[in-house]
Amino acid sequence: MYRIGIDFGGTNIAVGIVNEERKVVLKKSLPTGMGKRPVDEMVSDMASLCLELTEKVGVKLSDVESIGIASPGVVNSSTGVVEYYCGMNLDHYPMAKILSEKLGGFHPVYMENDANAAAYGEVLAGAAKGARHALMITLGTGVGGGIVIDGKIYDGFNFAAAELGHTVIEKDGVPCSCGRRGCWEKYSSATGLIRMTKEEMEKCPGSRMWEGISDLSQVNGRTAYDAAKKGDEAAKRVVDAYQDYLAVGLANMVNIFQPEVLCIGGGVCGEGDYLLIPVNEQVMREQYAKTSARKTKLVIASLGNDAGIVGAACLGEGK
Amino acid sequence: MYRIGIDFGGTNIAVGIVNEERKVVLKKSLPTGMGKRPVDEMVSDMASLCLELTEKVGVKLSDVESIGIASPGVVNSSTGVVEYYCGMNLDHYPMAKILSEKLGGFHPVYMENDANAAAYGEVLAGAAKGARHALMITLGTGVGGGIVIDGKIYDGFNFAAAELGHTVIEKDGVPCSCGRRGCWEKYSSATGLIRMTKEEMEKCPGSRMWEGISDLSQVNGRTAYDAAKKGDEAAKRVVDAYQDYLAVGLANMVNIFQPEVLCIGGGVCGEGDYLLIPVNEQVMREQYAKTSARKTKLVIASLGNDAGIVGAACLGEGK
Repeated sequence: MYRIGIDFGGTNIAVGIVNEERKVVLKKSLPTGMGKRPVDEMVSDMASLCLELTEKVGVKLSDVESIGIASPGVVNSSTGVVEYYCGMNLDHYPMAKILSEKLGGFHPVYMENDANAAAYGEVLAGAAKGARHALMITLGTGVGGGIVIDGKIYDGFNFAAAELGHTVIEKDGVPCSCGRRGCWEKYSSATGLIRMTKEEMEKCPGSRMWEGISDLSQVNGRTAYDAAKKGDEAAKRVVDAYQDYLAVGLANMVNIFQPEVLCIGGGVCGEGDYLLIPVNEQVMREQYAKTSARKTKLVIASLGNDAGIVGAACLGEGK
Repeated sequence: MYRIGIDFGGTNIAVGIVNEERKVVLKKSLPTGMGKRPVDEMVSDMASLCLELTEKVGVKLSDVESIGIASPGVVNSSTGVVEYYCGMNLDHYPMAKILSEKLGGFHPVYMENDANAAAYGEVLAGAAKGARHALMITLGTGVGGGIVIDGKIYDGFNFAAAELGHTVIEKDGVPCSCGRRGCWEKYSSATGLIRMTKEEMEKCPGSRMWEGISDLSQVNGRTAYDAAKKGDEAAKRVVDAYQDYLAVGLANMVNIFQPEVLCIGGGVCGEGDYLLIPVNEQVMREQYAKTSARKTKLVIASLGNDAGIVGAACLGEGK
């Protein structure tokens, strides 16, 4: 028994065939071509990838149990409509129905917001496996959030919930694209880390963060971590500040949700225990229910880029 | 058909008989005597009030459908045990069982955290009536929070969730009793309003906030509002700052939960539209899902002190 999961991303459209053990048995991606072509063509690519992959796996499309699409933006999961996605000017776009039509009326096609689908994937088959209540925080260009309550994706009464990165943790702080100031994602995203790295590098021309870097545009999310591990003081300040903001935001989430598992993903998590251990200590120190015998488990996501595919594929389970 | 709701507060123990329309038909309270007597005596008072009120209403205790207790602290709602409440040094105190015994084995007795019970009351019979997903924020000594998801109280995997007031909104801000700095409750509680009022009064000896006040200890949550309504500039600054912090925290909650109704209660809400209208405008401006057709409704709680009684009484519904 197979399901298909589609991760519709800003860079790539990734399609995967997922088996009963919720494992990706085959996947393939194509460039999204965002801003270069109409969304209808992107959905056509989803359809051809579905056909190509099912053929390779040796299963008829009609034998696939369900297809799920994880999409950015506000996604109405009950109708399969992208209500709004500013990145592509999508407005009430019935993506699930259009994909279904392109696949000769294939049914059912489910949809979810991409961060929610990734959280669902981690709960069903990843680092948060088996958790009744779990949160997933993705540290990428922004800080994405997904909420799973009672084993189900929680998306609010209008499908727009879980914008965890858009919670102000430093009032009147760094301006955010959402119009507010001091949103968590301005500090804890990879983008935030890079900004803080650059600021410290400009202040400290002798820092080892400059090793191999001729221009600030070459700075990435590892620059400060690499130099900090070599003992560079300026880099350590960046790492400490970054992790302090991260822990403050995570402790906020623990105080609100007390989830069984709080799963963090995104490139920065490649730092593993170097990041996880001090952040976890601070979160446990700052969380309100210090005396509670049962504490939220802070873990690093394990499905990587497959989380969205797995979560999307599994949307049809139990429906 | 009647149920009994008990609001076990720091000041009073309030017991109410609640009818099928979820209305309090009779209630009575006694001083809690916190710090002056053992908790067992307080539970005895709950029992005698239950007997006294049922007799007055003319119903046998055995005909009461259920009793519910709303208590501060971390309450295990599945066992009826107060896991932890620092205000009384309660530690794994089986309050539901003890009340049941004092009432000759009356069954069932349910328990919930007080803020959660108040939220539940507002959803069942108050300002958030009928909402599937709702939040309740109480602006009192602290900022209390209650979460209702899918019509049920959400209290996390360890019953300690919904500490919405203990989310940092101003990193490295005002120290909080929880050990963190800059918690929302330091700014948006009545206590926070009073602190800001005093600070501004000290800076502005000519302000109308001083009218009728000889000593800063007389300042209360109305001092700044009363003077602001008379046009006092210093008082307006206090009110604007207070409402700004409140709106920032509320917008955080909207971005996280997108609840159908966000209900605010507590003494400060007596200001009504004078507070609600500007705060709502800012919350709508700051919330992320600006384009969503369906917006969270910000309302003032309508059950007042009865919210806990009604919510506690209704814990037995559908069980």
